[in-house]
Amino acid sequence: MDRLIEAIEQTQNPSVVGLDPTEALVPPQVVASFADEVRDSVESDEEAPAAQLAVAYFEFNRAIIDAVADIVPAVKPQIAMYEALGPAGIDVYTMTCEYAAEQGLYVLGDVKRGDIGSTAAAYAHHLSGMNGWNPWHEDAVTVNPYLGCDGITPFVEAANAADKDIFVLVRTSNPSSSELQMLDLADGTKVYEHVADLVETWGSGSIGTHGYSRVGAVVGATHPEEGRALRARMPHTFFLVPGYGAQGGTAADVAGMFDDNGSGAIVNSSRGIIGAWKKSPQYSPDMSADDALALVADCARQAASDMRDNLRIAVYR
Amino acid sequence: MDRLIEAIEQTQNPSVVGLDPTEALVPPQVVASFADEVRDSVESDEEAPAAQLAVAYFEFNRAIIDAVADIVPAVKPQIAMYEALGPAGIDVYTMTCEYAAEQGLYVLGDVKRGDIGSTAAAYAHHLSGMNGWNPWHEDAVTVNPYLGCDGITPFVEAANAADKDIFVLVRTSNPSSSELQMLDLADGTKVYEHVADLVETWGSGSIGTHGYSRVGAVVGATHPEEGRALRARMPHTFFLVPGYGAQGGTAADVAGMFDDNGSGAIVNSSRGIIGAWKKSPQYSPDMSADDALALVADCARQAASDMRDNLRIAVYR
Repeated sequence: MDRLIEAIEQTQNPSVVGLDPTEALVPPQVVASFADEVRDSVESDEEAPAAQLAVAYFEFNRAIIDAVADIVPAVKPQIAMYEALGPAGIDVYTMTCEYAAEQGLYVLGDVKRGDIGSTAAAYAHHLSGMNGWNPWHEDAVTVNPYLGCDGITPFVEAANAADKDIFVLVRTSNPSSSELQMLDLADGTKVYEHVADLVETWGSGSIGTHGYSRVGAVVGATHPEEGRALRARMPHTFFLVPGYGAQGGTAADVAGMFDDNGSGAIVNSSRGIIGAWKKSPQYSPDMSADDALALVADCARQAASDMRDNLRIAVYR
Repeated sequence: MDRLIEAIEQTQNPSVVGLDPTEALVPPQVVASFADEVRDSVESDEEAPAAQLAVAYFEFNRAIIDAVADIVPAVKPQIAMYEALGPAGIDVYTMTCEYAAEQGLYVLGDVKRGDIGSTAAAYAHHLSGMNGWNPWHEDAVTVNPYLGCDGITPFVEAANAADKDIFVLVRTSNPSSSELQMLDLADGTKVYEHVADLVETWGSGSIGTHGYSRVGAVVGATHPEEGRALRARMPHTFFLVPGYGAQGGTAADVAGMFDDNGSGAIVNSSRGIIGAWKKSPQYSPDMSADDALALVADCARQAASDMRDNLRIAVYR
């Protein structure tokens, strides 16, 4: 986790921008501006809307990346938003990761993969690439623990070999996460605490110079008390904290997930940053696509800067 | 689940062929035969090996699909094997799904996705497509339950709208699945039993004419006793049973996962069918690519036919 921790130190900003575009988050004139280009490139009319959105997502992401690259350490594209568009979306996901990496950002691929050992080994190519070629351009990926260590070990090995990281789901930010994660076990712990202990163990062989292993944990901002307890329970596990902003988590909520040195966690915000333009009085449906993208960029930079400042006050205490 | 059940009845064969190609499972002369074609199409030399494998995977899959389409009801491509090759692999995954669907097969996309509600809604486009366009060509997908119903409901809604299905991981076939799934809960049940009860509930609104809901369960062939108990515990939940053959499960092991009418489950075999050519004395490294593909097809058909006959004896008792 050293590379991420150093990027956070350099920017003095423990936050990551979630690049999770949806049709509602991209100004409609930006999407419309690609109609001609796409019409000429697709094989059939019916795939044009998805292809057009895919191109628009990339331009949208690029505007945001350019706007925040000097003030944030990392971005976290959520692959589901791209998968929704089919293979054309996957292309744009990898293009987004590549572009962000080229701008010096740590790229956290939110893919939440997980499977049995031989299959997890295939997924681990997200980190290891193929024979030196790296089609995914991710520095880390998120992984699901439901299948146990068989599904984790191949990712850990790939992370070790490629100087990359993984983040395992422990306590997710969504309301129904409790249905499984909060169940009481016979030994007095809860399921997510047991998973937390497994994650701490899975990382024990890869602790870096800053004291954190390559196996991080996903801990939702919406669970401040549990997050604080997990911080103590998992001393060598770095946290990825989603759920800030639009999902309800505040800087005060996440403060307990950091260690005494103000390290140990990175907080994600997606809609609060990439959708900040929607709250701007300067937006008008009559704006040009270029002007709309410029507004997206300005608002994203302002929102990312505000989030950084709020986290600095709450965390670097 | 009606469409799958009817396809099984029509073939009298409760088995599904796992299309999980790896470099080791495709005859090397088949891969080599695409070297020239690929060299002319890729942007850089370093991506050529992955692109070449991707093309070879498709031809390999097509040979197998053609060989088994009249004797099996379904195929199950494992997307991880394709994701390992980057976006070119994803293209081949969708081409494989499309080709299988065109041959009349039910296509079960083994994608094991799972995320919070808004993100699961994006993943659910695997089933719903976009505005009538269906880039993924899947009839069902596998889903991970760790995030609770938020992550499941969007898939169920998409399945209902598109006459498709999902299969939720309950008791997976791999050795370390016990680390989480077999934990004892304070109420005396085990984690996987609790998940089983959730899955039965999640499906309660979509029970079809054959008595099974659109929300199936993944139950590994390597756990025959638990599978038998789950069959009784989940009367409206259809089972996808991986782990047959190469992973150790036998026809006798899976028999208890079927209901009294010989329905209620479909058993997957991947390597045992698509890699059957590797045990053939007829294979020679000097064979042409076409001859090697013909052998792959013959061996796959024989293995699929043997599996069908073994399951008929064990299940249609």
